[in-house]
Amino acid sequence: MALIVKKFGGSSVATPEKIMAVAKRVLQEKNVDDKVVVVVSAMGDTTDDLISLAEAITDQTYGREMDMLLATGEQVSIALLAMAFAKLGHPAVSMTGFQAGITTNETFNKAKITGINPDKVWKELNAGKIVIVAGFQGITNDGEITTLGRGGSDTTGVALAAGLKADHCEIYTDVDGIYSSDPRVVPTARKMKEITYNEMLEMARLGAGVMHPRSVELGKHYGMPIHVRSTFTHESGTFIREEYTMEEKEFVIRGVTHDTNVAKIAVLGVPDRPGIAYKIFSALAAANIDVDMIVQSVRAVDKHIIDMVFTIAQGDVPQAKTILEKLSAEMEFSGVIIDEKVAKVSVVGAGMLGNPGIAAATFGALADAAINIEVISTSEISISCLIQADKVKEAVNAIHARFFPA
Amino acid sequence: MALIVKKFGGSSVATPEKIMAVAKRVLQEKNVDDKVVVVVSAMGDTTDDLISLAEAITDQTYGREMDMLLATGEQVSIALLAMAFAKLGHPAVSMTGFQAGITTNETFNKAKITGINPDKVWKELNAGKIVIVAGFQGITNDGEITTLGRGGSDTTGVALAAGLKADHCEIYTDVDGIYSSDPRVVPTARKMKEITYNEMLEMARLGAGVMHPRSVELGKHYGMPIHVRSTFTHESGTFIREEYTMEEKEFVIRGVTHDTNVAKIAVLGVPDRPGIAYKIFSALAAANIDVDMIVQSVRAVDKHIIDMVFTIAQGDVPQAKTILEKLSAEMEFSGVIIDEKVAKVSVVGAGMLGNPGIAAATFGALADAAINIEVISTSEISISCLIQADKVKEAVNAIHARFFPA
Repeated sequence: MALIVKKFGGSSVATPEKIMAVAKRVLQEKNVDDKVVVVVSAMGDTTDDLISLAEAITDQTYGREMDMLLATGEQVSIALLAMAFAKLGHPAVSMTGFQAGITTNETFNKAKITGINPDKVWKELNAGKIVIVAGFQGITNDGEITTLGRGGSDTTGVALAAGLKADHCEIYTDVDGIYSSDPRVVPTARKMKEITYNEMLEMARLGAGVMHPRSVELGKHYGMPIHVRSTFTHESGTFIREEYTMEEKEFVIRGVTHDTNVAKIAVLGVPDRPGIAYKIFSALAAANIDVDMIVQSVRAVDKHIIDMVFTIAQGDVPQAKTILEKLSAEMEFSGVIIDEKVAKVSVVGAGMLGNPGIAAATFGALADAAINIEVISTSEISISCLIQADKVKEAVNAIHARFFPA
Repeated sequence: MALIVKKFGGSSVATPEKIMAVAKRVLQEKNVDDKVVVVVSAMGDTTDDLISLAEAITDQTYGREMDMLLATGEQVSIALLAMAFAKLGHPAVSMTGFQAGITTNETFNKAKITGINPDKVWKELNAGKIVIVAGFQGITNDGEITTLGRGGSDTTGVALAAGLKADHCEIYTDVDGIYSSDPRVVPTARKMKEITYNEMLEMARLGAGVMHPRSVELGKHYGMPIHVRSTFTHESGTFIREEYTMEEKEFVIRGVTHDTNVAKIAVLGVPDRPGIAYKIFSALAAANIDVDMIVQSVRAVDKHIIDMVFTIAQGDVPQAKTILEKLSAEMEFSGVIIDEKVAKVSVVGAGMLGNPGIAAATFGALADAAINIEVISTSEISISCLIQADKVKEAVNAIHARFFPA
C-alpha cells in the first residue's frame, strides 16, 4: 500500500476531455490498496478569465475579493474531476482548501500555508475514496478564503503530502522531468533520475523554469520526496529528495542553467569610503530590486577609488537607473554603465563542494569556446559566469559537453 | 436607520457593467445609516455553462459534486460586486453561504435552509460595510457545500432577512411588481401595491410566474415583508405581507391567473368500489405526478359506475398514460381520455371567503363570453375553471374586466 499525492496543473485539466484523461490515468496507475489524493489547478485559462472580469470592474486590486474570485477556478476543476472518477466507477470526493484543512495566514493573494488538518481527508481515504483537493487555496483561522500565489498548487500538493505523511508527491507537468540543461538549448541534455532539494533550488534560482522554488523548499523542510513527471507519458521522471541513492552519484554536476533576463550595472569611480556598498544596495533594496552577482574591484589603491559591478533583472533597469542617478550626485560616481546584452550561465551540483576542478573545468570550457567571462560568482553548490548574451547557447553547450560527455 | 436585504438575480449581474450598475443603484438608495445586505445569483448563463461542463463529463448526476460545481457561480458574482462597491468608494465584503452562516440539510441540489447564524454578517454590518452574500447556497453541519435548488436565491434573501430581523427583503426582478394578471395577456392588468403571502402563494400555484412559492412561504413563516420590484426603475413595486394596509382593500380579487401547462385526464366507467380513488392517485403519486383539479362524478347510481376527471402537468402525460393503461385491466375502466388542449383560469383573493358573489361573477364572466367550463375547483382563496386552451386569453380578459373595471 502506498499513499501518494498527485498534482495536475491547469493545462492537464483544460477541458472536460482532459479531465477525463487525468481520471483514467490516475486509475491506471493506482494499485488496489493505494490511497490517492489528487490536487488540481483551475482549468486552462480560467484564472486569466476571472482576472479579466475583475479588470472590467476595477483597475485596483482588492486582495480578499480577488481571492474569493480566483478560488472558484479550482473548485470547478475538483467537482468535474470527482464526477469523472464517479463516471469511471471509482468513488471519489472533492474538497476545497477549507474542507481539506489547509489553513493559511491572512496575506491575501500570496498566503502562506500555516497548517494542515488532514482529518477529513483521512476519513475519506479510509472509506476507499480518491480525494480531490483544490490547489492554490486555503482558509484563515477566521474563515477567510485565501489563495497562495505563484507556485501555489505545487505547494498545496507538497504540503498535503507532508501533512498526510505520504510516500511522495507527484507533480505532473508538460516536461518529463528535470534535465541537466534546457533541452531546447542543449539537445544532448539528460533527464536526471534524482536531484537534491538544494540543487533544484539553486537551479531554479539560476534560471531553470520547471519547478517554482516554493514547493521545493517545503519538500526540503519536511523531507517529502517530489516526483516531477510528464502528464503525457508513463515513464518515471525525476525525484527531488534530500540525498541521492547510490547509482545517481556519477555526475558531480547536476545541471547547467542559463538566464538571459539579466542586466549588468557598473558603477564606476566610487570614492572608497566606509558604507558605500550599504548606501547603494540599501537604496536598491528599498525599491524591491533584487541584486545578484556583486563584484567590487579596487581600481587604484592609492587613490581610494573603486568600481562596483552587479546584476539585476532587466525589468528593474529603469528604476535602478533613476535611483543610481540620484545617488550619483551625492556619492560622486564617475559614471554608471548599463549593459542588457548579457546572460548568466551556471553549473549546479552539491558535489562541487571541495572539488576545485569544477570551477577550472567550467572556465576552461568557456575559454576553449573563446567566450569571455565578465563576472564570476559562486555559492556552495554553484558557479555562475556572466557572458555576452549572444554567446549563451554556445556557452551552455560547451559547459554541458564538458561535464556530461556523450 | 433601516436594515434591508436586497436580492438581485442572474440577469441583473450578467456582465461586469451590470454588476457596476447594481452597486451604483444600491448606493443611490442607501441612506447613510442604513445597513444593507445584498444577495446575488450567478452571472447570466453561468449556471447553465457549468452544467454543460458537467454534462461533457457524465450523463449521470452527482448531487454533492454538482453543488460543489454550481456554488462557484455565485462566488464569482459576490467577489465582483464587492470590487464594484470598493471601486465606488464604499466598504463592502463578500461572503459565501458558509461564511454568512447559512446552514442547510444534506439534500444536495435542493437543500433546505435549517438555520442562519448571522454573527459574521452583523460584525461586518456594524463595521459600516455592505455585506454581499452568495445566494442559492449553504453548508451542512459537516462542512459540505449545498445548493438550494429552484427559487434558491430568493430563499437565501428572505431567510437572511428573517435571521437578521431586517425591515424587509427586496427582490429585484425584470418586472416591476405583482400584477392583477399577466400584462402580456391582459393589457389592462394593474400593479398591486400589496398582496398577502397566501394570495401570492395561491397565485404562484395557479400559474403566476414572478415569485417561486418557496421564498414566499418562508416570508410568511417569519412574517418578513417581501418587496418585489424592478431592477430597471426606482418605483416602488409590490409588497407581499401578512395583511393589507387600509387603502388596498378596494379589490376583493387580487389576481386572475392562467396556466396552459395542463392536461385533462378522464378515466371513464370506473366500477364504484371503495378504494378506487386511492388506487388511481397513489399509483400516480408513486411516480411523482402531481394531480390538481379532481372531480368524481356518478354516471348512473344504480349501476355503480363513476367517471373520474383530473388534471396534471403536460410533461407528465406519457408516464400517466402508461400507469393508467396498467391499471385499466385490473380495475375494468371503460376508457381513458386525455385532452392536452385545455387551460386553467383562476381568480385569487383572500376576500372571497364568505363572499359567494365571487364564484357567480366568475362563471358569469365566462358565460357572457360563451366560454364553456369543463371542470371547476375551489380553495379557500381561489376559484379555478378548466376551459379549452384556445379561449384562455379571452377568458382571462373577461374575468379581469369583471373584477377590475376600467
